[in-house]
Amino acid sequence: MIVRQPVGVGCSRRDFVKASPAVAAAFLAIPRAPQPPTVDGDRVNAILADFRRFGGTPDGGTTRLAYSDDDLACREYCAGVMERAGLEVSIDLGGNLIGRRPGTDPAALPIVVGSHIDTVPAGGSYDGHVGSAGAIEVALTLNDRGIALRHPLEVIIFPNEEGGKTGSRALVGRVAPFELDVVTASGFSIGEGTARIGGDPARIAEAQREPGSIAGFLEVHIEQGAFLETDGIQIGVVEGIVGIRRWAVTVTGMQNHAGTTPMPQRRDALVAAADLILAVNEVANTMPGRQVATVGRIEAVPGAPNVVPGVVRATIEIRDLEMGRISLIFAEIQRRVRAIESDREVTIALDPFYETLAAPTDPRFRDIVEASANGLGYTNVRMPSGAGHDAQSMAELGPVGMIFVPSRNGISHSPDEYSAPDDITRGVNVLLGSVLALDSAG
Amino acid sequence: MIVRQPVGVGCSRRDFVKASPAVAAAFLAIPRAPQPPTVDGDRVNAILADFRRFGGTPDGGTTRLAYSDDDLACREYCAGVMERAGLEVSIDLGGNLIGRRPGTDPAALPIVVGSHIDTVPAGGSYDGHVGSAGAIEVALTLNDRGIALRHPLEVIIFPNEEGGKTGSRALVGRVAPFELDVVTASGFSIGEGTARIGGDPARIAEAQREPGSIAGFLEVHIEQGAFLETDGIQIGVVEGIVGIRRWAVTVTGMQNHAGTTPMPQRRDALVAAADLILAVNEVANTMPGRQVATVGRIEAVPGAPNVVPGVVRATIEIRDLEMGRISLIFAEIQRRVRAIESDREVTIALDPFYETLAAPTDPRFRDIVEASANGLGYTNVRMPSGAGHDAQSMAELGPVGMIFVPSRNGISHSPDEYSAPDDITRGVNVLLGSVLALDSAG
Repeated sequence: MIVRQPVGVGCSRRDFVKASPAVAAAFLAIPRAPQPPTVDGDRVNAILADFRRFGGTPDGGTTRLAYSDDDLACREYCAGVMERAGLEVSIDLGGNLIGRRPGTDPAALPIVVGSHIDTVPAGGSYDGHVGSAGAIEVALTLNDRGIALRHPLEVIIFPNEEGGKTGSRALVGRVAPFELDVVTASGFSIGEGTARIGGDPARIAEAQREPGSIAGFLEVHIEQGAFLETDGIQIGVVEGIVGIRRWAVTVTGMQNHAGTTPMPQRRDALVAAADLILAVNEVANTMPGRQVATVGRIEAVPGAPNVVPGVVRATIEIRDLEMGRISLIFAEIQRRVRAIESDREVTIALDPFYETLAAPTDPRFRDIVEASANGLGYTNVRMPSGAGHDAQSMAELGPVGMIFVPSRNGISHSPDEYSAPDDITRGVNVLLGSVLALDSAG
Repeated sequence: MIVRQPVGVGCSRRDFVKASPAVAAAFLAIPRAPQPPTVDGDRVNAILADFRRFGGTPDGGTTRLAYSDDDLACREYCAGVMERAGLEVSIDLGGNLIGRRPGTDPAALPIVVGSHIDTVPAGGSYDGHVGSAGAIEVALTLNDRGIALRHPLEVIIFPNEEGGKTGSRALVGRVAPFELDVVTASGFSIGEGTARIGGDPARIAEAQREPGSIAGFLEVHIEQGAFLETDGIQIGVVEGIVGIRRWAVTVTGMQNHAGTTPMPQRRDALVAAADLILAVNEVANTMPGRQVATVGRIEAVPGAPNVVPGVVRATIEIRDLEMGRISLIFAEIQRRVRAIESDREVTIALDPFYETLAAPTDPRFRDIVEASANGLGYTNVRMPSGAGHDAQSMAELGPVGMIFVPSRNGISHSPDEYSAPDDITRGVNVLLGSVLALDSAG
């Protein structure tokens, strides 16, 4: 077949057909992969804009403390939209706001999607919001298009994620009785707050669900870091939520007069602490892996300009997707600490005081999320979540997957938190695609 | 002359005379240097014990805050002993307690001795006490022996040395009006306290004396360091009081989430601060000289275990007998700070906020003190005073000298502060000898 006009990649369909009708016909007859279904991007971003009516601040951020009036009002708003999406709305004993959509298979376990809407004080308008608006938008889209899923679908808005992941932890029976008396930033105790939002603190233990009682949980969330933005990638396929361990550090040297104590006679706890800070940083940077380690807090005692510090208190935090790597890193830090003790003639105590276990996402779910992103033509990369999420609680009920969208400048927990509307839309499209893939996979 | 019995160095006088009467007679006829006069060691230590009646604590220390009731009572006690020593007692407008003894030469300027009796909270029983008891004991000894000096003698107990050297600084016109409102540890402002002890805050400026109006000032004091004790030396011949400069350090990096910020993307202000702490320590240790440098205070912002510190505030203090060396050391620290800024991608501001000039003792007075110690057979060494003293104010009126006695373990500003009675007696003997030498020298 002689092609008389220049035709190449990128030429229009019309030119192609004109240039070579037969080839074009043969080509165009090849069944093409159907475009994946997408959500209504304008609508999900409109929901986000609506959220700002409840606690949005003039600087663009949001202060919507768990259990506050703004929290109650925003949850009410969500319940309304959920109902318009055809969901059956209820509130469980832990205060979780649940919108349910039956599936066609009575034996199928629910697919759960959701996130949180409470914020830190002077927080942003995207952390948790994107996942909550996104989950609701998935339900709206399925409803619009009359798509019936085999599995039931549950959209959950978990309460008090920022103050302890109370809602999602109630679903896995991990809210201890003493927590009900803990007073949150809103001024209400967790027990009082749970009642305010329609739960029942006295019966919160009954909110617990059985492990294996869900088909899976999927959450879309802002990255809260700058990895995606720095590398120009549109979607993060989350490998899991890192485990965290923290130690209280106490360096003991000898307090002394800063004027009359010659340098060689000092046992300066802050000099030794400086060695330790650099050791932690160096070990985290040089050991292979994607771990992070941080000395975030420090205090010298007595803390006067004219006194050689006799005691220094600090904290070390290590995070990684594998608890084993955290142990490895800590073991190396301990080795270096022994050397510092000897070198600086101090004693250094490292006392563990906090731990959360790593929560890997399900490998199958990573594949589903990745395939969904690829099918939509979005660049994507596998990465860990350095921050905790409701998904890590849900991981005790069944397989979980998480989807990240880029955070501008990696900023979070700040009014400057921002993700672009198109990025958000892409993330929710991947969520929808993953739900559908999970539904058909079984 | 045949010596029939073994006689050598250290043999007794009696054996010497027996062995060789003629030689002995000739030898013993050589006029020997008179034994230097000494004070009553039991008495000066008894005065120190008496002091403990006013604010002494069961742990052996003393809390006698300037202007407190204990301070007033102890000053009253001192005035009484001064009177018994034949001194004419008065209180000047700055609250200095002065005991005066006329000299035989009406034109001669006064020789001044003294120290302070106020302490820090939970302080020791020797800091200032040794010099005050010692000065009073010198007067008692001169009185006992009927020794007339050419120069008038003034014994001064300066108030509020620990809270700002108020008394001695009033003598040189350096108490600024705003200081009168500063509330001291006793709860009284400096103005109120000055009135309580018999001064007149409204006329404190009139307490100022003319430069050159004294023949000299001598003070015996505990070392407050461990140099003398470590090297087993009995007397410190003080070369001067070190100058001090302090800077406020502000390290600015970038605050970030400790979980989601990969190590290479961090601009951790505390890691940079650790570099700075080690640089200060290294420069002070490696540059030739006896300087000291200290980072005594540090604070990371926000100071949470899970946040990469964006700001660190700290202090740097450098002390040396020569202001020029302080500048040299600071210049080297600045060079290293520029490298840290570049290496860690932070900015580091160093803002000076405090300075006292070095106050060298008079070279002639050092010789006098050294000769006095040698004449008494005491081991001695020249050394700087790393701590400030009333002597540095008095240096503006005339030549000053200082005498150190050993501090056990170098501890000061603590109930564990201690100097042995014999060490104290030796120090006061040197003080007496120096006063006498100064008096005869002119």
